[in-house]
Amino acid sequence: MTGVVARLEKTAITPAGVPRQRFWLEHRSRQEEDGHPREVQVRLAVVLVGRKAELIQGLKEGQNVRVTGFLSRAGYKGEARDRVQLIAETLVPLD
Amino acid sequence: MTGVVARLEKTAITPAGVPRQRFWLEHRSRQEEDGHPREVQVRLAVVLVGRKAELIQGLKEGQNVRVTGFLSRAGYKGEARDRVQLIAETLVPLD
Repeated sequence: MTGVVARLEKTAITPAGVPRQRFWLEHRSRQEEDGHPREVQVRLAVVLVGRKAELIQGLKEGQNVRVTGFLSRAGYKGEARDRVQLIAETLVPLD
Repeated sequence: MTGVVARLEKTAITPAGVPRQRFWLEHRSRQEEDGHPREVQVRLAVVLVGRKAELIQGLKEGQNVRVTGFLSRAGYKGEARDRVQLIAETLVPLD
Protein backbone atom coordinates (compact mmCIF):
# COMPACT_ATOMS: atom_id res chain seq x y z
CA MET A 1 0.00 0.00 0.00
CA THR A 2 1.23 3.51 -0.81
CA GLY A 3 0.42 6.58 1.26
CA VAL A 4 1.61 9.51 3.33
CA VAL A 5 3.18 9.12 6.78
CA ALA A 6 0.49 10.96 8.77
CA ARG A 7 1.86 10.43 12.29
CA LEU A 8 5.04 8.82 13.65
CA GLU A 9 4.81 7.38 17.16
CA LYS A 10 7.60 6.77 19.69
CA THR A 11 9.31 3.40 19.55
CA ALA A 12 7.91 1.00 22.14
CA ILE A 13 9.83 -1.96 23.63
CA THR A 14 7.83 -5.12 24.35
CA PRO A 15 8.26 -6.98 27.69
CA ALA A 16 10.49 -9.40 25.72
CA GLY A 17 12.72 -6.44 24.78
CA VAL A 18 11.62 -6.33 21.10
CA PRO A 19 11.29 -2.84 19.55
CA ARG A 20 7.88 -2.04 18.02
CA GLN A 21 7.54 1.10 15.93
CA ARG A 22 4.10 2.29 14.83
CA PHE A 23 3.06 5.03 12.40
CA TRP A 24 -0.19 6.04 10.75
CA LEU A 25 -0.44 5.84 6.95
CA GLU A 26 -3.02 7.84 4.96
CA HIS A 27 -3.80 6.35 1.56
CA ARG A 28 -5.90 8.06 -1.15
CA SER A 29 -6.73 6.66 -4.57
CA ARG A 30 -9.50 6.44 -7.15
CA GLN A 31 -11.20 3.06 -7.46
CA GLU A 32 -14.25 1.73 -9.26
CA GLU A 33 -17.22 0.75 -7.10
CA ASP A 34 -20.18 -0.92 -8.86
CA GLY A 35 -19.06 0.59 -12.16
CA HIS A 36 -18.66 4.16 -10.82
CA PRO A 37 -15.33 5.94 -10.11
CA ARG A 38 -14.92 6.74 -6.46
CA GLU A 39 -12.29 8.47 -4.29
CA VAL A 40 -11.04 6.06 -1.62
CA GLN A 41 -9.36 7.03 1.65
CA VAL A 42 -7.85 4.68 4.22
CA ARG A 43 -6.05 5.48 7.48
CA LEU A 44 -4.12 2.45 8.68
CA ALA A 45 -1.74 1.77 11.57
CA VAL A 46 1.54 0.28 10.28
CA VAL A 47 3.68 -1.66 12.78
CA LEU A 48 7.40 -2.47 12.34
CA VAL A 49 8.67 -5.21 14.67
CA GLY A 50 12.24 -6.02 15.76
CA ARG A 51 14.95 -5.27 13.16
CA LYS A 52 12.25 -3.90 10.83
CA ALA A 53 11.88 -0.96 13.26
CA GLU A 54 15.19 0.35 11.84
CA LEU A 55 13.43 0.98 8.50
CA ILE A 56 11.86 4.04 10.11
CA GLN A 57 15.18 5.91 10.44
CA GLY A 58 15.12 9.22 8.59
CA LEU A 59 11.41 8.90 7.83
CA LYS A 60 9.43 12.16 8.22
CA GLU A 61 5.75 12.94 8.63
CA GLY A 62 4.35 14.00 5.25
CA GLN A 63 6.67 11.67 3.35
CA ASN A 64 5.26 9.29 0.69
CA VAL A 65 6.06 5.60 1.22
CA ARG A 66 5.17 2.15 -0.11
CA VAL A 67 4.59 -0.55 2.53
CA THR A 68 4.07 -4.28 2.07
CA GLY A 69 3.20 -6.82 4.76
CA PHE A 70 0.16 -8.61 6.21
CA LEU A 71 -3.00 -7.45 7.95
CA SER A 72 -3.48 -8.39 11.57
CA ARG A 73 -5.98 -7.52 14.31
CA ALA A 74 -4.56 -4.84 16.64
CA GLY A 75 -5.28 -6.82 19.80
CA TYR A 76 -7.16 -9.77 21.32
CA LYS A 77 -9.48 -7.93 23.72
CA GLY A 78 -12.26 -5.35 23.40
CA GLU A 79 -12.45 -3.08 20.37
CA ALA A 80 -8.81 -3.84 19.41
CA ARG A 81 -10.13 -7.22 18.22
CA ASP A 82 -11.90 -5.48 15.32
CA ARG A 83 -9.17 -2.93 14.62
CA VAL A 84 -6.92 -3.80 11.66
CA GLN A 85 -3.23 -2.98 11.38
CA LEU A 86 -0.54 -3.71 8.78
CA ILE A 87 2.53 -5.60 10.04
CA ALA A 88 5.19 -4.27 7.67
CA GLU A 89 7.65 -6.49 5.84
CA THR A 90 9.06 -3.79 3.54
CA LEU A 91 8.99 0.01 3.74
CA VAL A 92 10.27 2.10 0.80
CA PRO A 93 10.34 5.94 0.82
CA LEU A 94 8.93 7.34 -2.45
CA ASP A 95 10.26 10.91 -2.05
CA MET B 1 -8.17 -12.35 1.31
CA THR B 2 -9.50 -15.76 2.32
CA GLY B 3 -11.50 -16.41 5.46
CA VAL B 4 -14.68 -17.64 7.09
CA VAL B 5 -18.00 -15.77 6.85
CA ALA B 6 -18.39 -14.95 10.57
CA ARG B 7 -21.57 -12.88 10.41
CA LEU B 8 -23.95 -11.94 7.59
CA GLU B 9 -25.85 -8.69 8.02
CA LYS B 10 -29.17 -7.62 6.48
CA THR B 11 -29.00 -5.88 3.12
CA ALA B 12 -29.22 -2.09 3.50
CA ILE B 13 -30.47 0.30 0.80
CA THR B 14 -28.71 3.66 0.51
CA PRO B 15 -30.74 6.91 0.16
CA ALA B 16 -29.89 6.69 -3.57
CA GLY B 17 -31.56 3.25 -3.66
CA VAL B 18 -28.29 1.27 -4.02
CA PRO B 19 -28.15 -2.08 -2.14
CA ARG B 20 -25.22 -2.44 0.31
CA GLN B 21 -24.55 -5.85 1.81
CA ARG B 22 -22.06 -6.24 4.63
CA PHE B 23 -20.59 -9.33 6.27
CA TRP B 24 -17.75 -9.99 8.69
CA LEU B 25 -14.81 -12.09 7.48
CA GLU B 26 -12.47 -13.89 9.91
CA HIS B 27 -9.05 -14.66 8.44
CA ARG B 28 -6.40 -16.85 10.11
CA SER B 29 -2.96 -17.69 8.72
CA ARG B 30 0.65 -18.20 9.76
CA GLN B 31 3.04 -15.41 8.78
CA GLU B 32 6.64 -14.54 9.58
CA GLU B 33 7.22 -11.54 11.81
CA ASP B 34 10.84 -10.43 12.33
CA GLY B 35 12.03 -13.92 11.36
CA HIS B 36 9.65 -15.78 13.72
CA PRO B 37 6.52 -17.72 12.66
CA ARG B 38 3.37 -16.19 14.07
CA GLU B 39 -0.37 -16.96 13.93
CA VAL B 40 -2.25 -14.01 12.43
CA GLN B 41 -5.93 -13.24 12.89
CA VAL B 42 -7.93 -10.49 11.20
CA ARG B 43 -11.62 -9.65 11.47
CA LEU B 44 -12.67 -7.39 8.61
CA ALA B 45 -15.96 -5.93 7.43
CA VAL B 46 -16.56 -6.76 3.74
CA VAL B 47 -19.03 -4.54 1.82
CA LEU B 48 -20.71 -5.45 -1.48
CA VAL B 49 -22.27 -2.51 -3.32
CA GLY B 50 -24.96 -2.44 -6.03
CA ARG B 51 -25.00 -5.48 -8.37
CA LYS B 52 -22.13 -6.99 -6.33
CA ALA B 53 -24.62 -7.48 -3.45
CA GLU B 54 -26.05 -10.38 -5.49
CA LEU B 55 -22.79 -12.30 -4.94
CA ILE B 56 -24.01 -12.97 -1.40
CA GLN B 57 -26.87 -15.22 -2.52
CA GLY B 58 -26.61 -18.71 -1.07
CA LEU B 59 -23.70 -17.72 1.17
CA LYS B 60 -23.85 -19.13 4.70
CA GLU B 61 -22.15 -18.21 7.97
CA GLY B 62 -19.24 -20.59 8.53
CA GLN B 63 -18.49 -20.86 4.81
CA ASN B 64 -14.94 -20.31 3.48
CA VAL B 65 -14.60 -17.62 0.81
CA ARG B 66 -11.95 -15.68 -1.11
CA VAL B 67 -12.60 -11.94 -1.49
CA THR B 68 -10.70 -9.36 -3.57
CA GLY B 69 -11.26 -5.61 -3.63
CA PHE B 70 -9.86 -2.45 -2.08
CA LEU B 71 -9.54 -1.15 1.48
CA SER B 72 -11.54 1.92 2.43
CA ARG B 73 -12.27 3.81 5.64
CA ALA B 74 -15.68 2.84 7.05
CA GLY B 75 -16.86 6.45 7.39
CA TYR B 76 -15.80 10.11 7.43
CA LYS B 77 -16.73 11.04 11.01
CA GLY B 78 -15.68 9.93 14.47
CA GLU B 79 -14.15 6.50 15.04
CA ALA B 80 -15.42 5.25 11.64
CA ARG B 81 -12.63 7.37 10.12
CA ASP B 82 -10.05 4.94 11.50
CA ARG B 83 -12.06 1.77 10.88
CA VAL B 84 -11.02 -0.17 7.76
CA GLN B 85 -13.36 -2.17 5.53
CA LEU B 86 -12.88 -4.13 2.29
CA ILE B 87 -15.04 -3.02 -0.65
CA ALA B 88 -15.42 -6.31 -2.53
CA GLU B 89 -14.85 -6.67 -6.26
CA THR B 90 -14.98 -10.48 -6.36
CA LEU B 91 -16.34 -13.05 -3.91
CA VAL B 92 -15.71 -16.77 -4.50
CA PRO B 93 -17.02 -19.54 -2.18
CA LEU B 94 -14.29 -22.09 -1.38
CA ASP B 95 -16.56 -24.83 0.01
